[in-house]
Amino acid sequence: MALYIFKFGGTSVGTIERIKQVADKVIEAHRRGDQIVVVVSAMSGETNRLVGLAHEIQKQPDARQMDVLLSTGEQVTIALLSMAIINQGVPSVSYTGARVRIVTDDTHSKARIEKIDTDRIYHDLGQGNIVVVAGFQGVSASGQITTLGRGGSDTTAVALAAALKADECRIFTDVDGVYTTDPRVEPKARLLDRITFEEMLEMASLGSKVLQIRAVEFAGKYNVALRVLSSFGEGQGTLITYEDTQMEKALVSGIAFNRDEAKVTIEGVPDKPGIASNILGPIADANIEIDMIIQNVAEDVTADFTFTVHRNDYRRAYAILENICESLGARKVTGDEQIVKVSLVGVGMRSHAGIASTMFRSLAGEGINIRMISTSEIKISVVVDEKYLELAVRTLHDAFDLDQVPVNTVE
Amino acid sequence: MALYIFKFGGTSVGTIERIKQVADKVIEAHRRGDQIVVVVSAMSGETNRLVGLAHEIQKQPDARQMDVLLSTGEQVTIALLSMAIINQGVPSVSYTGARVRIVTDDTHSKARIEKIDTDRIYHDLGQGNIVVVAGFQGVSASGQITTLGRGGSDTTAVALAAALKADECRIFTDVDGVYTTDPRVEPKARLLDRITFEEMLEMASLGSKVLQIRAVEFAGKYNVALRVLSSFGEGQGTLITYEDTQMEKALVSGIAFNRDEAKVTIEGVPDKPGIASNILGPIADANIEIDMIIQNVAEDVTADFTFTVHRNDYRRAYAILENICESLGARKVTGDEQIVKVSLVGVGMRSHAGIASTMFRSLAGEGINIRMISTSEIKISVVVDEKYLELAVRTLHDAFDLDQVPVNTVE
Repeated sequence: MALYIFKFGGTSVGTIERIKQVADKVIEAHRRGDQIVVVVSAMSGETNRLVGLAHEIQKQPDARQMDVLLSTGEQVTIALLSMAIINQGVPSVSYTGARVRIVTDDTHSKARIEKIDTDRIYHDLGQGNIVVVAGFQGVSASGQITTLGRGGSDTTAVALAAALKADECRIFTDVDGVYTTDPRVEPKARLLDRITFEEMLEMASLGSKVLQIRAVEFAGKYNVALRVLSSFGEGQGTLITYEDTQMEKALVSGIAFNRDEAKVTIEGVPDKPGIASNILGPIADANIEIDMIIQNVAEDVTADFTFTVHRNDYRRAYAILENICESLGARKVTGDEQIVKVSLVGVGMRSHAGIASTMFRSLAGEGINIRMISTSEIKISVVVDEKYLELAVRTLHDAFDLDQVPVNTVE
Repeated sequence: MALYIFKFGGTSVGTIERIKQVADKVIEAHRRGDQIVVVVSAMSGETNRLVGLAHEIQKQPDARQMDVLLSTGEQVTIALLSMAIINQGVPSVSYTGARVRIVTDDTHSKARIEKIDTDRIYHDLGQGNIVVVAGFQGVSASGQITTLGRGGSDTTAVALAAALKADECRIFTDVDGVYTTDPRVEPKARLLDRITFEEMLEMASLGSKVLQIRAVEFAGKYNVALRVLSSFGEGQGTLITYEDTQMEKALVSGIAFNRDEAKVTIEGVPDKPGIASNILGPIADANIEIDMIIQNVAEDVTADFTFTVHRNDYRRAYAILENICESLGARKVTGDEQIVKVSLVGVGMRSHAGIASTMFRSLAGEGINIRMISTSEIKISVVVDEKYLELAVRTLHDAFDLDQVPVNTVE
């Protein structure tokens, strides 16, 4: 007998019909003899409806009250799902975050889980119940309802899996797992059986929106076996786990990309100590997040300073640089909001040289100009013109044979 | 400084605009220096929406889950009302029934309040907050969310008033108080300044739907001064309280009536011991509630047995009597579903004879035939044909000068 956490998002419980389908799926697992805790989000659209009501009252809704308000969304779902399960003759109990006692800090609207009481859930599972828990919410030590922020239901599921020592945490979504890259860009993209936490984190942070980053971090930290799979399809999905001997021995596991990039450059800055903070200070003060940074020192002892920002922040970042350009003694400001970032991700890179050069050679072979490069232990990212996005992804997918299941060459 | 409980029902908080108006009203009282606890219902329509969702899943929704579901209705309102108050610069905190710890028994969907913790509310009031509490809901000793049944928000308000030793519990509704009778039937109906708990209970049970009967009982039991007044109008409404020297010295305080009556008669039943239970037993088994009962013994030692039921139960009651008619040796079954009940209510009746005869004489003077009579210490009810309802009410209103403020003739 295994203990599983099943998590279903807002779309998967978005209608009464779908709630009934989720009940069927959960009951099927229960009938195989496993213990099941189900974590659910608010029905899709409900959170937005509640946010809309709040904004009719307060431009900046009170954070505490907002949590009281929003937490009703999942509470509706847990009651309806438990009813649907009971209606099939299987006993079920439902829990709000507060009633489990998912204790969080008191940072309303983005609280962090500190502790989960497991007694009641173990007791209810022992009695043969399917336990249904509201995602996204908890309760502070002082008894206030808190929420974990959007997407927090993934985090609830993983945290429950860790606290209950579940055998696996299954995140059911509208995709059937993690692919080598986005199949809408590269039809030959291949579903991965397994991926490591680190790779998943890189994929997620680079815009592959399968899982919440916090949930992956949490799963990694507490060694929770995490599986992403389709809510209503068949298939085993993708297991996110630690590197082990069964892992595919790929050099590159996947290709992530991010369309929302823009870059700004301040040219001809006199190269003196402190210049970077003089430039980046005002950007940080404006709450603009910076991703890649490059500084080129030219022969005339001036530097060109380039960084990327989210495309929504492009105009503000550009204006800030123009403001400080003269006082820094810089030559001029240029920018480009038609760029994208494409990244190879894979733990295999750690032990293999030559990946970067294969990457650059393949792109050059297609006439794709690389504007910026950044690397980490398990990732190489390049910035290219937006128009090359699809070509770059497909070229790299081919170059690293990602449509092929890698041969297990244990070293 | 006084402590008031304000209670607003679903219609009074049915839109964002109305929630803002409620906030204004509450803040006005707070600015006068009083401490305010506000009890609110779900926004009108919300409970029905949630019930609809549940019925799409289960024909007989699980009672526990139904309470988890329905309690979200008031939770939305408390958050929105607190926001609206905070938005005007006044501090406010909101409480679900579970968070106050309004402890109830575990009879889901019609739980009874057993105990209310007051520490947190006193603390928050002491800090200058307007405290907003979800009506209609509580929590069982085992931590399950419970609800008090429809209209339970009145009960929450009164119970909080008792627990907090509030100076007054103000129930804001869509009427501006308790009238001598329904103004739609008798335009000369007069708003009462005061009425006793006992009179209010009789008025409520006879179909004057201003307050929940349980709330009035509770208020009487714990001596909570209860005031009914209009949500958005001015005026002092009606104070429901114990009889005291300031009370109007009326013989009759009001005229209540109930349109939903029907009567059935089983004629010529041999008058033997146990006959009443042989007739009423099957009716009770069918969950049909009986109101008035009359048994006439005729000279031939058979009895005619008549009772009234809710009009919705008329056909079922009639069929049951027809079924048992033969075995009882009775003659036949007759019935009438075009009847109504009209009642005089007043604590003054206790000490005054002659009220019944004035009542019967006035009705007879208008040619209104009395079909049944029943009396209690502070009430006289008659059953008349439905077509006479308005005439009977107006005739009695005139006969007892109810449009006139009674003279205080202290005896």
